[in-house]
Amino acid sequence: MTIQSATASEVVQKATLAKLASPQLSLLTTDQKNRALLLIADALVAEAQSIIEANATDLREGRQNGTNESLLDRIALNEQRIDGIAQGLREVVELEDPVGHVLEEFTRPNGLHIRKIRVPIGVIGIIYEARPNVTVDAAGLCLKTGNAVVLRGGSAALHSNKRIVEIMHEALSRSDVPPNAVQLILDPNRSSVDEMLKLNGLLDVLIPRGGASLIQNVVKNATVPVIETGAGICHTYVDETAQYDMALNIALNAKVQRPSVCNSMETLLIHESFAQKHLASIAEQFANQNVELRGSASALQLVSSMKSAADEDWDTEYNDYILNVRVVQGIDEALEHIRLHGTKHSECIVTENLEHASRFLNEVDAAAVYHNASTRFTDGFEFGFGAEIGISTQKLHARGPMGLPELTSSKYRIQGSGQIRG
Amino acid sequence: MTIQSATASEVVQKATLAKLASPQLSLLTTDQKNRALLLIADALVAEAQSIIEANATDLREGRQNGTNESLLDRIALNEQRIDGIAQGLREVVELEDPVGHVLEEFTRPNGLHIRKIRVPIGVIGIIYEARPNVTVDAAGLCLKTGNAVVLRGGSAALHSNKRIVEIMHEALSRSDVPPNAVQLILDPNRSSVDEMLKLNGLLDVLIPRGGASLIQNVVKNATVPVIETGAGICHTYVDETAQYDMALNIALNAKVQRPSVCNSMETLLIHESFAQKHLASIAEQFANQNVELRGSASALQLVSSMKSAADEDWDTEYNDYILNVRVVQGIDEALEHIRLHGTKHSECIVTENLEHASRFLNEVDAAAVYHNASTRFTDGFEFGFGAEIGISTQKLHARGPMGLPELTSSKYRIQGSGQIRG
Repeated sequence: MTIQSATASEVVQKATLAKLASPQLSLLTTDQKNRALLLIADALVAEAQSIIEANATDLREGRQNGTNESLLDRIALNEQRIDGIAQGLREVVELEDPVGHVLEEFTRPNGLHIRKIRVPIGVIGIIYEARPNVTVDAAGLCLKTGNAVVLRGGSAALHSNKRIVEIMHEALSRSDVPPNAVQLILDPNRSSVDEMLKLNGLLDVLIPRGGASLIQNVVKNATVPVIETGAGICHTYVDETAQYDMALNIALNAKVQRPSVCNSMETLLIHESFAQKHLASIAEQFANQNVELRGSASALQLVSSMKSAADEDWDTEYNDYILNVRVVQGIDEALEHIRLHGTKHSECIVTENLEHASRFLNEVDAAAVYHNASTRFTDGFEFGFGAEIGISTQKLHARGPMGLPELTSSKYRIQGSGQIRG
Repeated sequence: MTIQSATASEVVQKATLAKLASPQLSLLTTDQKNRALLLIADALVAEAQSIIEANATDLREGRQNGTNESLLDRIALNEQRIDGIAQGLREVVELEDPVGHVLEEFTRPNGLHIRKIRVPIGVIGIIYEARPNVTVDAAGLCLKTGNAVVLRGGSAALHSNKRIVEIMHEALSRSDVPPNAVQLILDPNRSSVDEMLKLNGLLDVLIPRGGASLIQNVVKNATVPVIETGAGICHTYVDETAQYDMALNIALNAKVQRPSVCNSMETLLIHESFAQKHLASIAEQFANQNVELRGSASALQLVSSMKSAADEDWDTEYNDYILNVRVVQGIDEALEHIRLHGTKHSECIVTENLEHASRFLNEVDAAAVYHNASTRFTDGFEFGFGAEIGISTQKLHARGPMGLPELTSSKYRIQGSGQIRG
């Protein structure tokens, strides 16, 4: 592979540079990689003012283009947020480096000594939306695991991302990590995303981070291997024997502790006999938290003040103070509802019936299945893994919170003494 | 998901049936799955004559269509081959079932008890070429791991495959495995393959098995996750300090022990000072084994009787008695050649220089890297894993020989006592 001609697109040129940087990066020691991450963290803090200025340009242009304020708030950077981003990198430095770990080791009867060891994946493409902190978080996790990264962030934060990557490159130039290991695509057109999706041979994997439509575009159109992350229509099923206080606390927590994230609850399923006793008070508690309830016909019979849920509501990730409520006849109906409407992210049963708990944990097909705990725990930090690149909702390579080990591959290193196959 | 209307294609209808069978299959015990596999093995032997008759139709039609004899030989079945296929299933019965294995287990400070366990992937699509034994081998490995399977074999063995799957279905109907867990696509048109490639939501993964063009078609066009298998342009690099006998034996074994398979050698790289002493006699040994040699300019200077290798030869998987030979100045040139022309399958260095061995094992990016042993060992049985579904040459999910564990995913089962996130 040689560097592409000047007529190659920005995407091909930058992915090629990342690919060429990848072998050198894969051989670095943990100390070399950590030192680079710390240099970046220090540089981001030292250069914070220039990032804030670039960010002000993004915000000004966004306002001129009529971007809504909640998106602008997610893009906005200040000294405190930049300190937080730098602190995130320092936490990645503290995490164990999985590269080189021996996963299996054995000697065959013929004397071949086989070791399966973790190695970097190679070049990781990240396609994401607005928040410029993803630029640093994702690059940090990729570099720590010896991977080069091609970043394609949302155009709304382009000036911020460009300045951040300039600072990263300058810091890397003072380290053993080749600066080309981090590439930022500047082309704001959709075509640059489309091009990344088909870049087999240069990108080893694509990780989309963002809303459902971004992720589905990547999953449905990419021929580069994809790790699907994030979209979560999560359910909590309150069974007949659930303790009232526990069920209420878990359901409220799953909905309102942070409604905007993927592991928050979108639909509450309640056993009919539990609902008859408690749905009215549960509905009142949610109303007190400003949650709009949208009920099934069976739920409306018990609490007529709810809105009626439309068919599409059961398949909608609100990420907002809205909750679907359905009264079901029992665990079978709950399992069937989750099979039809779940996104294989996080699902919960609240019950004192251990047989039902066991059925739910066995039969629900999701990355994380909970008995008597909030779905909000599906998270790298909460699981004790540290920073995550995303939460995989697919079944290959990684499932659930993806930490550093999930950013590696493996290879077999085989030591012989002249063995041949008979 | 409901069964598709009668207007849906065969591919969609059968993939839907497989998907609907998948939850039931995923909950079966190892004993239930093993019993089903043994019933299939017995039925294949008992019904061998009907398979041989169907196979005769494939062979007759193949001859009428001018199919070449080596392909017909791969398709041909007789009692002995059918016994071998049944025996393969019985060996899968003996393998450990990975489903349910606990991969990680820990308790968080808040009391959440988290277990990561192996679960089936779901529905696996296999796209393959001629040999009808793949129909049974692949289905056996999928069923043992609780996965449903959609098989799309080559049209040249369609009658054989159809009869084999009829026998499997009849056997499964006497077991606890739902017969719909095994589906065979009968549509011989290329469009049925194209349709499988885009069947996101029904197929969880595609595994292509066959030649380079089949695999590349799947890799480049599929939006369903793919595990890339098989294509192997494998190199052996003989370093300056290699022992002559060991180098010769390893190189001969890698080429001629079974040239038709993916882990055989296509290119021999030889250090120039070793070549000056030994290339002539090595060339003679290969000629004695009827191997045609195609040399680089540097090799032709030492052995002028070789053919001259064309540019494309370095990127060709011959699977035949043909070998490229290149004389290199040292390990750096060898590593660069492998980086440019390797397919990330199996690569070997023969050397007594431990520093060079270490560099080679570290720097070569391949599923299996060997020091002083033949690349022919990259194989599930040779590694001690048992039957394999293929040899992954990609970096996500699985790398190298893929046994039963590689046909599983994982999920987190979390046991709480009312925990909510603060």
